[in-house]
Amino acid sequence: MKVSDLGEFGLIARLAEELSAQTAAAGDLFVGIGDDAAVWRGAEGAHIATTDTMVAGVHFPGEGLPWRDLGWKSLATNVSDIAAMGGTPEYALVTLALPGDFSVEDVIELYAGLGEAGRAYGVTVAGGDVVSSPVFVITVSLSGRADLDESGQPRLLRRDAASAGDLVAVTGYLGGSAGGLRILMNAADAPGEARERLIEAHLRPQARLDAGRAALAAGVRCAIDLSDGLMQDLGHICQASGLGATVWRDKVPVNPWLSHAVAPDQALRLAVAGGEDYELLFIGTEEQVLEVRRQVALPVTIVGEMVVDPQQRVQLLDEDGREVELLAAGWDHFARGERRS
Amino acid sequence: MKVSDLGEFGLIARLAEELSAQTAAAGDLFVGIGDDAAVWRGAEGAHIATTDTMVAGVHFPGEGLPWRDLGWKSLATNVSDIAAMGGTPEYALVTLALPGDFSVEDVIELYAGLGEAGRAYGVTVAGGDVVSSPVFVITVSLSGRADLDESGQPRLLRRDAASAGDLVAVTGYLGGSAGGLRILMNAADAPGEARERLIEAHLRPQARLDAGRAALAAGVRCAIDLSDGLMQDLGHICQASGLGATVWRDKVPVNPWLSHAVAPDQALRLAVAGGEDYELLFIGTEEQVLEVRRQVALPVTIVGEMVVDPQQRVQLLDEDGREVELLAAGWDHFARGERRS
Repeated sequence: MKVSDLGEFGLIARLAEELSAQTAAAGDLFVGIGDDAAVWRGAEGAHIATTDTMVAGVHFPGEGLPWRDLGWKSLATNVSDIAAMGGTPEYALVTLALPGDFSVEDVIELYAGLGEAGRAYGVTVAGGDVVSSPVFVITVSLSGRADLDESGQPRLLRRDAASAGDLVAVTGYLGGSAGGLRILMNAADAPGEARERLIEAHLRPQARLDAGRAALAAGVRCAIDLSDGLMQDLGHICQASGLGATVWRDKVPVNPWLSHAVAPDQALRLAVAGGEDYELLFIGTEEQVLEVRRQVALPVTIVGEMVVDPQQRVQLLDEDGREVELLAAGWDHFARGERRS
Repeated sequence: MKVSDLGEFGLIARLAEELSAQTAAAGDLFVGIGDDAAVWRGAEGAHIATTDTMVAGVHFPGEGLPWRDLGWKSLATNVSDIAAMGGTPEYALVTLALPGDFSVEDVIELYAGLGEAGRAYGVTVAGGDVVSSPVFVITVSLSGRADLDESGQPRLLRRDAASAGDLVAVTGYLGGSAGGLRILMNAADAPGEARERLIEAHLRPQARLDAGRAALAAGVRCAIDLSDGLMQDLGHICQASGLGATVWRDKVPVNPWLSHAVAPDQALRLAVAGGEDYELLFIGTEEQVLEVRRQVALPVTIVGEMVVDPQQRVQLLDEDGREVELLAAGWDHFARGERRS
């Protein structure tokens, strides 16, 4: 069987099975494969670790890249995973696989961007590895910590902690990153500031550490960061929590700059399925969501609710409660022909 | 400037500079770029983290691979880095970048090998990432811990802790991995058990956790694992410690099976420059080395000594004290045309 037959998420599930069969009882592992990050018990508190890889020609164009932005993004996306657990990032390892004729100046630029993101999020790049490769690949692994509660369990935002009737909320605006990617790939254009803001949304995503902490403090226990798109990432929460979800089309906070670049129906599609916005999606009671809204400087929008559904579907509904069909509900690195970004 | 002009180690040094200029004071970082692993202060004790990447067609042939062995090796080489710091490994993240037509069965085999190494070394695979890529790349990042001494400093085996007059010792036998690689690449052959043992040395390296711990307990404070070859890895110690080193040719513990596969002079060359043996090289007083020898089940051989040398050379001497010239002193992923393995 080919990896593409199983798809990215099918493969990860299969590997998680394999490992649980292989691994001796891992009593100190709080969260293993299948959430934004892994969490295990430390001497005091809990350790969080996550890793993300970007491949030239797959996750970004192989040429003409602003390497400083790529450095920023490769660290910020990992910080976003730790934000989505409600943790605090601390130390990163950076691995570069690159061809021998790769420009040293470009690597230095990349590291300058890593350093900028490190300062922005309080992360120290502590080491890594550099190897030769026919294609450029950057892997960042990031570790951090979470607090423990009185009973010795870590205080976390997990994917499996949603309850039916909970509200679904997101920070910021959606679809800007996908719009910026289309502009960078000459598949769309926008005038002046709109162009700039959309490209920035794609190249310089912001990790929502403050929102993650505020959500935890408000009693929220379920979240994910929006890397694959609202519909698909909410689908991960549904699967992990054994529920379905409803998203109200008219509530989706579509990035206002998108209207300068694409048609309204396409803007909605990019907002719910575009991916790489790295906003925080969290699930909680109305009271909790309103408390988060009071605590963070970002817009916090209620976009839907969790429902009982044995099929664990995510349904996008119009103003009359009718389901809206989208051509693609998100990205899968292997199962779909479409490239992620 | 191209990466190949600077070489792997030149690039790493340049990036370390860039980061030290970029990073705000990282008071809790004990060891950053330039050792086997990074080390930072935790609530109790110190955290150690390391990462290693293997690229198909660069670090191993792209086809006909025993994937289970590759899984073993990709974790064992990281454990070896933590052994060379005197630490204890705990949790690993595994990132796979692979083409969509890659076989799922091969990925499962790879994970079975990761699981075997995990059980052997007490490591839990806690998560990771799977992405699409035109070429197969596996990155393992591994975290663990080190103890703190009474003054709150971590007890570590570092590269920069050698003193002139100290002895240079290695565990096990050298050159077997390079011999096995030559057999796998049909550049050499050996009969029966020799063939098997040499291939095993290449595909199933053993991380020397016990030797690392025994060295620490004996008071040793300087070590490295042999990934690039004795001459080159000892060179890293010389650079970090500001010393030179002498290696006595007749003391090098050449893998006894090598004589079945290659000529004697080639066996010596593979033993001092072949790479990927993952034995522990450590530096200490005679008393310390003898204590380590008493404590571990492996052979422990004194192969040379640290000397004052402003040029920080590693010299291989024959029985009459004359320097022996080798064609290549080790591997550099970029600076040399030769592939590492």
